[in-house]
Amino acid sequence: MQRLPEITSPTNPLVKEIHALRLRKRREETGLFAIEGLRNLEDALARRAAPVSVLLGDAALEAPACKAVVRRAVSAGADVYRVSQRVLEKLSHQANAQPAIATFRQHWCALQDAPVAPRSLWVALEGARDPGNLGTILRTATAAGACGLIQLDGGCDPFSPEAVRASMGTIFAQRLVRAGLRDFADWCRGRGAVLVAANPRGDRDFMALEYRLPAVVLMGSEGEGLSEAALALADMRAAIPMRPEAESLNVAVSTALMLYAVVARCGLADPSG
Amino acid sequence: MQRLPEITSPTNPLVKEIHALRLRKRREETGLFAIEGLRNLEDALARRAAPVSVLLGDAALEAPACKAVVRRAVSAGADVYRVSQRVLEKLSHQANAQPAIATFRQHWCALQDAPVAPRSLWVALEGARDPGNLGTILRTATAAGACGLIQLDGGCDPFSPEAVRASMGTIFAQRLVRAGLRDFADWCRGRGAVLVAANPRGDRDFMALEYRLPAVVLMGSEGEGLSEAALALADMRAAIPMRPEAESLNVAVSTALMLYAVVARCGLADPSG
Repeated sequence: MQRLPEITSPTNPLVKEIHALRLRKRREETGLFAIEGLRNLEDALARRAAPVSVLLGDAALEAPACKAVVRRAVSAGADVYRVSQRVLEKLSHQANAQPAIATFRQHWCALQDAPVAPRSLWVALEGARDPGNLGTILRTATAAGACGLIQLDGGCDPFSPEAVRASMGTIFAQRLVRAGLRDFADWCRGRGAVLVAANPRGDRDFMALEYRLPAVVLMGSEGEGLSEAALALADMRAAIPMRPEAESLNVAVSTALMLYAVVARCGLADPSG
Repeated sequence: MQRLPEITSPTNPLVKEIHALRLRKRREETGLFAIEGLRNLEDALARRAAPVSVLLGDAALEAPACKAVVRRAVSAGADVYRVSQRVLEKLSHQANAQPAIATFRQHWCALQDAPVAPRSLWVALEGARDPGNLGTILRTATAAGACGLIQLDGGCDPFSPEAVRASMGTIFAQRLVRAGLRDFADWCRGRGAVLVAANPRGDRDFMALEYRLPAVVLMGSEGEGLSEAALALADMRAAIPMRPEAESLNVAVSTALMLYAVVARCGLADPSG
């Protein structure tokens, strides 16, 4: 393997820049985000994601898989460094510092570029608050064949460390879109996608509706549900039945139930869009 | 309201005992667990759970709901204290200390006492590792009308702070059972419950199976799935379809999909057992 430039000091400017990416403000200013772990880096490269910087500790450099990781990262244009344990300890969110850290550019997709093909499925979220749930939703959406996630009017950051970790690598598989409600409504109508809202006071049991693709599954926040304005846009309002002993479901759980209700009727969606 | 005994020092023996309940070892030795938040305490009392100790800060004591909470806690046999902010800050897991902390006895149910009625549904988990997922599973199980959760051969503690928090109060609504695989198998057969295993290499699509109640949904751990021994017990093996871009689903998500696949076929289950 080629000789890699070394970074040993936790106060190195690149290390400080990556460390600052745990702040949303800094992620938004730079357009970057970070992932941890050699296995996650391998996954990202396998999904053709191009790292910006790759920091590898000795434990990573000794791993059999590492040669290929370095080769692929370099050919994707990344700067690859050998770093000290102290650098890894500063950057890792885990109790045991991960031996590999990498940064990537955030891949936002503009709403007008978000594809809708005959077998497309999208998730739209209004007011997502918990990044762990957001990451779990990306993971389930990928499993169901969804194209990506549309965040309506804000919500938490899908590129936060918690969301990235919970996504189990699927952050790289999903298109990420931010949109206002009005533009979103125009986009749905213009592309012929059926808009299915989950709503406790929905018209029909979520398993009994005749879904079709292309579709968008529209979910509200756990506490407040969907806004009246968002609910008014929906072509179908689906209620998930629940015993009164439970007041609500976790939003990652209810999103999964809705996505797979569509899959039960239409089969897995096609993420190629 | 009656005058409550006061605890102002964080080194008070009761405070130290409650603080130690964040350790699994101490929870197992005492058979107790703790919850945080006035709203959660109200919920627990509404579910007829009997607190052992209740610690209330001034912010809780000033809340309109507090009088009824104190009355119900006292009549349930609890020792109720007014405590200082320093005590709450020591005991709370939240960034902003919650104004109410209460302890309860862990309510384990012996396998031979676990009821199976014609419309009963149970969840059995092998090797649950993440307490947040475990709590989310309790919440979904309650919504679906399940009787409770059976932990096979160990796994993480449903009475840990993370599990209790994720359960959103439903820890009090679910029966909790620990059992070895052999006893579990005898119990299922003896009670006529159909055992449905989620398995990526299952025989049939999970939505296409003809479930019936009483049933037990059997889930493995995220990383390793079910053991061969557990899988061999199953009457049905259900596969959740997935795009290859996602390697797996979060275990709380896959458990929810399985439970609601049974609900789709059989309706909500009856938790009264």
